Amino acid sequence: MIKVIISGFKGRMGSTAVEMVNNDPKLELAALLDPFATEKEVAGVPVFNDKADVLSVATDVWVDFTIPDVAYDNTKFALENKICPVVGTTGFTEAQITELIALSKSKKVGGLIAPNFAIGAILVMEFAKKAAQYFPDVEIIELHHDNKKDAPSGTAIKTAELIKETRTYKKQGAADEVESIPGARGAEFDGMRIHSVRLPGLVAHQEVIFGAKGEGLTLRHDSYDRVSFMGGVNLGIKKVVNIDTLVYGLEHLL
Amino acid sequence: MIKVIISGFKGRMGSTAVEMVNNDPKLELAALLDPFATEKEVAGVPVFNDKADVLSVATDVWVDFTIPDVAYDNTKFALENKICPVVGTTGFTEAQITELIALSKSKKVGGLIAPNFAIGAILVMEFAKKAAQYFPDVEIIELHHDNKKDAPSGTAIKTAELIKETRTYKKQGAADEVESIPGARGAEFDGMRIHSVRLPGLVAHQEVIFGAKGEGLTLRHDSYDRVSFMGGVNLGIKKVVNIDTLVYGLEHLL
Amino acid sequence: MIKVIISGFKGRMGSTAVEMVNNDPKLELAALLDPFATEKEVAGVPVFNDKADVLSVATDVWVDFTIPDVAYDNTKFALENKICPVVGTTGFTEAQITELIALSKSKKVGGLIAPNFAIGAILVMEFAKKAAQYFPDVEIIELHHDNKKDAPSGTAIKTAELIKETRTYKKQGAADEVESIPGARGAEFDGMRIHSVRLPGLVAHQEVIFGAKGEGLTLRHDSYDRVSFMGGVNLGIKKVVNIDTLVYGLEHLL
Amino acid sequence: MIKVIISGFKGRMGSTAVEMVNNDPKLELAALLDPFATEKEVAGVPVFNDKADVLSVATDVWVDFTIPDVAYDNTKFALENKICPVVGTTGFTEAQITELIALSKSKKVGGLIAPNFAIGAILVMEFAKKAAQYFPDVEIIELHHDNKKDAPSGTAIKTAELIKETRTYKKQGAADEVESIPGARGAEFDGMRIHSVRLPGLVAHQEVIFGAKGEGLTLRHDSYDRVSFMGGVNLGIKKVVNIDTLVYGLEHLL
Repeated sequence: MIKVIISGFKGRMGSTAVEMVNNDPKLELAALLDPFATEKEVAGVPVFNDKADVLSVATDVWVDFTIPDVAYDNTKFALENKICPVVGTTGFTEAQITELIALSKSKKVGGLIAPNFAIGAILVMEFAKKAAQYFPDVEIIELHHDNKKDAPSGTAIKTAELIKETRTYKKQGAADEVESIPGARGAEFDGMRIHSVRLPGLVAHQEVIFGAKGEGLTLRHDSYDRVSFMGGVNLGIKKVVNIDTLVYGLEHLL
Repeated sequence: MIKVIISGFKGRMGSTAVEMVNNDPKLELAALLDPFATEKEVAGVPVFNDKADVLSVATDVWVDFTIPDVAYDNTKFALENKICPVVGTTGFTEAQITELIALSKSKKVGGLIAPNFAIGAILVMEFAKKAAQYFPDVEIIELHHDNKKDAPSGTAIKTAELIKETRTYKKQGAADEVESIPGARGAEFDGMRIHSVRLPGLVAHQEVIFGAKGEGLTLRHDSYDRVSFMGGVNLGIKKVVNIDTLVYGLEHLL
Repeated sequence: MIKVIISGFKGRMGSTAVEMVNNDPKLELAALLDPFATEKEVAGVPVFNDKADVLSVATDVWVDFTIPDVAYDNTKFALENKICPVVGTTGFTEAQITELIALSKSKKVGGLIAPNFAIGAILVMEFAKKAAQYFPDVEIIELHHDNKKDAPSGTAIKTAELIKETRTYKKQGAADEVESIPGARGAEFDGMRIHSVRLPGLVAHQEVIFGAKGEGLTLRHDSYDRVSFMGGVNLGIKKVVNIDTLVYGLEHLL
Repeated sequence: MIKVIISGFKGRMGSTAVEMVNNDPKLELAALLDPFATEKEVAGVPVFNDKADVLSVATDVWVDFTIPDVAYDNTKFALENKICPVVGTTGFTEAQITELIALSKSKKVGGLIAPNFAIGAILVMEFAKKAAQYFPDVEIIELHHDNKKDAPSGTAIKTAELIKETRTYKKQGAADEVESIPGARGAEFDGMRIHSVRLPGLVAHQEVIFGAKGEGLTLRHDSYDRVSFMGGVNLGIKKVVNIDTLVYGLEHLL
């Protein structure tokens, strides 16, 4: 039975995490933390506004869905107090991550900071990286709802970066190809192409398509709901208690 | 039993058409025409080098897979001699098409000039045009082998033009969307987006994706082999003998 | 400005319909009806428990998401009082539908009873019916969440029935095909095959795949959320006020 | 420069392999073997009818696309003569494979017997096996041309067997699910489901679809042409010269 505190439990991700912990018989909700909470307890679980108070309760894992500055302080605090952090907040600087990993090693405390908790999305990236060893021709199509501001998506760029690590460079497409309308061939990234589709109804989807003589290989991830992140949080909680360093990226625990 | 002459039978499309006619018990190969032919007959079917000689044989339909200039002369010749033309050669000018339609009407002879004989591709265009009445948000992804020079494909542009006829105009995507790598959002056509994928292994494929609140509609055509055009040629042969004007585009016979 | 009453507004579909009407400047919410409502008004719109009271308010269209018996009475009541019904409740008998159509004609009142309001799903069926004229080889794959009890889905069976109307019959697959594990080739319907996939994460999806020599045509509908039905309800409201008979099936208004 | 002999070079796979070797500047065609060959050489490369004669030429790798009995003898012969076999012939018995592996070890000669040389297909299997650790809900859809006799395909069954090795067993679908037409839910394999689609125009395709709360992961392989196998043969040739045992299955070299 792993005892879990959830920090930022009033937020969307935090509250989804509470539900996930409550539904797993191998996990126990030990405490809840949120500066904005006004209640003193939820279904018998103590609620705190200040992280120092959390130490009054025995806890194995500190799940954190807050904001960058707070998350950094919380992760440090958890490590110092031998609680394993599982952190989904994005926006850590490289220096902060390096510092936190060093701290975790000195304390021999496992932990996880993950910019992406969707196991399926992580697997697609990992598989793409492997496939690119054999198939240097690849294009990425990412499809999102039409309120998304940035194109390509962060996941698509991350995927392309990972592919680049194993792919033999080549500039794809015909040498003499011509765009009769600019942008038709998509965004170029190291000779590969990335295409961003934006349509209402879509949520978050990505296809990585490899082509070779006479064959094709397609890896697709569909994310319909943030509940999909909880599989990764759950896995993180169960893995961090068995390691003695903090890792950055869920892929290190798969 | 419809009697068919195939003009340009030594070419790739022409020879595939010969095979198609031979395999259909409702069609009879009456003659073959090609200026480059050296044989005098093929399996009992007379072979001619000069179109004037074709008139020595009774023929209902003139299938033409030649080159633009020749195809224009041949189509005119066929109409004048009351043979229904089914022409797959591309490159006719608008003036030529107008003239040939007028000629067909005066002669009361049916005919077909089709830039695309793939019934599936035509249906996708027609369905897309219909769907766009209800779903103004649409993106086109066309995927071809990586020797293709032009992007977007002619079929994708034609599809977008047809969609434009029924779609209520809107500029798609988020109003504040930003491309961190140019081209990510594809080619813009009347507020829609077209994406061109080029990979070895692919042949000719197109997806038209509509999105609306809570749903998506996707129309996809895959073309693996030029034999796929023969369904359209076959249909054309059987339809032109029952109409009394030449039409431009297979869609008019579906 | 079309004045709308929503019957069954406390239910899931009804409350989604309220939202849809409120968000369309061309529609006005005139009244709400639900036997279980305890409030007397919602944002200034009168709430009734008894259908007879609705007549105190001027209304053009009666949207109904109730239960079969109630829906039949309500539809009859609406028609008799010259209010155009738009009914999403399923379970009407053929006799009831015939009777209601006759009533609508005698009253010259337009109306719609639709077992399926997803425009995309209806279009896929209609397109499939058209494509089957040219492509007699077709298989249906429908994919749903893994709590769905029935297989194949009602939509898949309806789609197959529509295809049957235009398709030249053939028993598909190799004449000597053998299933090494029973069920591999799916459910047989008039020589076609239907496959039912059930997985968590999925909502409601359907692919109709046509194959012919050298080509394929795929029609796919994805339904992620019941909000997708509202496009059809909205369209129904705007169409019924311009017709003078009740129709069964949204396809008659597309 | 790796010297290669191709055994069975008059067959379809063999002749495709000849072309592949000729197009790779790192490979050299040393000899050709086929009992049915009548020519004495092809473009300067000696042609033999009897395997014993091959020893007159220096060779590193023995590519074999023959028939089961011949392939077994040839593989043994190659190993005994310190030539690394790369064998694409199917139909070896388990006893034969065990014997050949033992022989390769005693001779310290690398080799490969592969029932499937399509790297993309192998990767899909490997990825599916990995993903099944995290996603126990999975269905396989395999799609082939409509002359295929067996269903499910051998690749689909092999994929399901590999998934079974890592997947936590569960009987998928709703506990109370009912097939209104038998076969709708596909073939059952260890609680998973396999669906076999057969349509003209298709070649050989497979989708492995994983589902979990709020997400989906799809792995798809498309095989359009047997030329796709040559990537695997090429890779095999380059790998076997650096190992000192024979392996069964291309996956051991990826």
